[in-house]
Amino acid sequence: MHDGLATPQVPATPISDTDDRPLNFTSEASVRSGEKEAVASSNKMLRSSRWLERRIIEYLFDAIGRPRIQLVLWDGTVIGSPMPVGQVVIHQPGLLPRLAWNPNLAFGEAYSDGTVSIRGDLRSVLVEVNRGLSVIRASQRSRPTTRFTRSSHSLAKSKSSVHHHYDLGNDFYRMWLDDRMVYTCAYYPKSDSTLEEAQVAKLDYVCRKLRLKPGERVAEAGCGWGALALHMARHYGVSVQAYNLSTEQVEHARQWAAREGLSDRVQFVQDDYRHLTGQFDAFVSVGMLEHVGPENYREMGQLISRVLTPTGRGLIHSIGRNATRPLDPWTDKYIFPGAHPPSLREMMDLFEDSGLSVLDVENLRLHYARTCADWLTRFDNVADQVATMFDQRFVRMWRLYLAASSATFETGDLQLFQVLFTRDSNNTIPTTRADWYTEPS
Amino acid sequence: MHDGLATPQVPATPISDTDDRPLNFTSEASVRSGEKEAVASSNKMLRSSRWLERRIIEYLFDAIGRPRIQLVLWDGTVIGSPMPVGQVVIHQPGLLPRLAWNPNLAFGEAYSDGTVSIRGDLRSVLVEVNRGLSVIRASQRSRPTTRFTRSSHSLAKSKSSVHHHYDLGNDFYRMWLDDRMVYTCAYYPKSDSTLEEAQVAKLDYVCRKLRLKPGERVAEAGCGWGALALHMARHYGVSVQAYNLSTEQVEHARQWAAREGLSDRVQFVQDDYRHLTGQFDAFVSVGMLEHVGPENYREMGQLISRVLTPTGRGLIHSIGRNATRPLDPWTDKYIFPGAHPPSLREMMDLFEDSGLSVLDVENLRLHYARTCADWLTRFDNVADQVATMFDQRFVRMWRLYLAASSATFETGDLQLFQVLFTRDSNNTIPTTRADWYTEPS
Repeated sequence: MHDGLATPQVPATPISDTDDRPLNFTSEASVRSGEKEAVASSNKMLRSSRWLERRIIEYLFDAIGRPRIQLVLWDGTVIGSPMPVGQVVIHQPGLLPRLAWNPNLAFGEAYSDGTVSIRGDLRSVLVEVNRGLSVIRASQRSRPTTRFTRSSHSLAKSKSSVHHHYDLGNDFYRMWLDDRMVYTCAYYPKSDSTLEEAQVAKLDYVCRKLRLKPGERVAEAGCGWGALALHMARHYGVSVQAYNLSTEQVEHARQWAAREGLSDRVQFVQDDYRHLTGQFDAFVSVGMLEHVGPENYREMGQLISRVLTPTGRGLIHSIGRNATRPLDPWTDKYIFPGAHPPSLREMMDLFEDSGLSVLDVENLRLHYARTCADWLTRFDNVADQVATMFDQRFVRMWRLYLAASSATFETGDLQLFQVLFTRDSNNTIPTTRADWYTEPS
Repeated sequence: MHDGLATPQVPATPISDTDDRPLNFTSEASVRSGEKEAVASSNKMLRSSRWLERRIIEYLFDAIGRPRIQLVLWDGTVIGSPMPVGQVVIHQPGLLPRLAWNPNLAFGEAYSDGTVSIRGDLRSVLVEVNRGLSVIRASQRSRPTTRFTRSSHSLAKSKSSVHHHYDLGNDFYRMWLDDRMVYTCAYYPKSDSTLEEAQVAKLDYVCRKLRLKPGERVAEAGCGWGALALHMARHYGVSVQAYNLSTEQVEHARQWAAREGLSDRVQFVQDDYRHLTGQFDAFVSVGMLEHVGPENYREMGQLISRVLTPTGRGLIHSIGRNATRPLDPWTDKYIFPGAHPPSLREMMDLFEDSGLSVLDVENLRLHYARTCADWLTRFDNVADQVATMFDQRFVRMWRLYLAASSATFETGDLQLFQVLFTRDSNNTIPTTRADWYTEPS
């Protein structure tokens, strides 16, 4: 019912939902479809589910290929798979029409409010539902001429959208991100890599792709808490000018640079990347393009082209799509206002008119599925503290966002593209990628 | 003046032009711009060049950034760089207006006729001119909404276009291609790899990218003389169904398969790939998309989607562009009628509506520059035999085609994209590419 921003390829280790009792899965579900069970006592005042309501739910279940989940209605009626990975409990009859009308937004809001809850592993339930919805979407595929209303990405609007999400407080993100506070897709070189290892591996992989050399100048657009900028300066001997709109992030990054004695080589600028000037040997942007808006890609490409030296390289790392489609309404309203994960076709606006040549594209979607699953586990470990800092609704909202993100990357509804490029006339790049995969010395 | 289909990154070892005496380059050119020298005696009957003609040439030279070449007019007048990499000799005054009006076509035809010749290394001269033209094109960049007349790619038309080029005779191609007769971009793992080594490396690289496993079924669209199909069957234990329209190529491929005892596992089908049916674990097409036509990409993607198993992978290897632009008129008329090297944006028509997800894009343009340069060297070694088989005009035309191709890849006017993809829901692909770069056991 949801396809927000997040990760997959994770062993489905059941994480019991914090707001509902865990579901004990035996060889058969404890309650079969069609039977009733006791729901929370508060529901006893509610009317019974109607025959038509139950038939409509059965019909919709069929339409999405009978996912391995069960729906538990407010009166205890159970509908769905006999071997569920989890149960979706609907606590209010009034929810049904809203769920049918705008499933994504209604589910997201109801889950956040607690009028819908999950028994079992939230992420696994969302993967099941997403798989079904993908089949529906596949049957509705149309030419990518579909247009949709896009959000504004003026300088002022961009600033407010970024504050919405990224200024929730460094303390909040520090509780569940990795040590370096990297809030983008990690790169897991091995099946047993930890999140910390995978984030360092990602930072290093980006540097290798860019083939940074000591003394070079790098521009970074959207630098988060500064981990990549500092990694580049420390391990590759470059100087960095890094842009970010978020007050708290820039503050943190500057302090970190000072602690590491890198303030002379890494300059954190609290400003829109569109104000970037100068000449750079490399341009890098990790996890910012989602907030740029496709209507600005051409301008961004021309900016990049203006600031790159004749042998300059660039890398853009962004959540993407296999085909143009708008962000789901719940994520757009509550998590990332105005965000848009572009298709590769849309991304070409960055390069085609700016004399830039694509050297390499890599799709890392399963790495993001795993990253988000790791984030969710860590978030669950500190959920009580987060509830104290904000409230239970916020906790539920963020659990849904992280779980749904992991699920959508796992089911292939979202992609993660790293695109490496250079000027069309640059012949100084090594002709194979083999050097990216040798062990660092 | 030309941007045909071909390769770069080659040491500019001067290959003296077969139809003209070699130019002896000392620290300065033997004749300075503005001076006159003796041209072929037959030209003595021609009128002198006019002041306006010389000024127009100077103007055009300036416009393309004064490439390091000289123009020698029919009356011996020399115009251009004081340090040329080569000279373009124009033997007829009537050529000038045609060259100004439609430079690419007029140059191609005049070179083929011998009314224009080159002193020095043809490839290096073309690289110089191309660099200049790229600057012009960059200043004229427009949104990729530019439309141009496209050739028809009906089944019948495709067949005739393919015969035009590929049925020149196996004997002809055998004279200058590598042992396996691979007529597509090679992959040079090292700076001193030979063409033979680089073609085998390419075949193997494609198999690794596709991660072929013994017993799998592979469909190949456009199989040339069968080298890839046989390599896959021999070294990866797969069975292959390979399509090709060219009578002579299919004949050769079948005989080769029989000699190698692979006829039971590799089936060569002389038919249009659009008649492909069945289910395959992999789909591969190397050097065919250029002949498919963008108006057919969507249909091709749907065909691929139909024949791929749920865990199937696909690889398309094609000459491409950084932005949508038609093929140059000379190549379109004389070398590859109806061919179109697509931009990545255009290629997305293959994937976006067919439930396919791009995993990897690699740009190998400098490998193709080198491949074409290697072909040109080998072609030059057998030019006398080719002239006996066809005629001098044919030799000049093919020298121009191979040299210009190498030059256009070197200057970045053409790209070579390998695109790896799978179904959007396939989670069985290894999550890193590291295995492609380990030594084969």
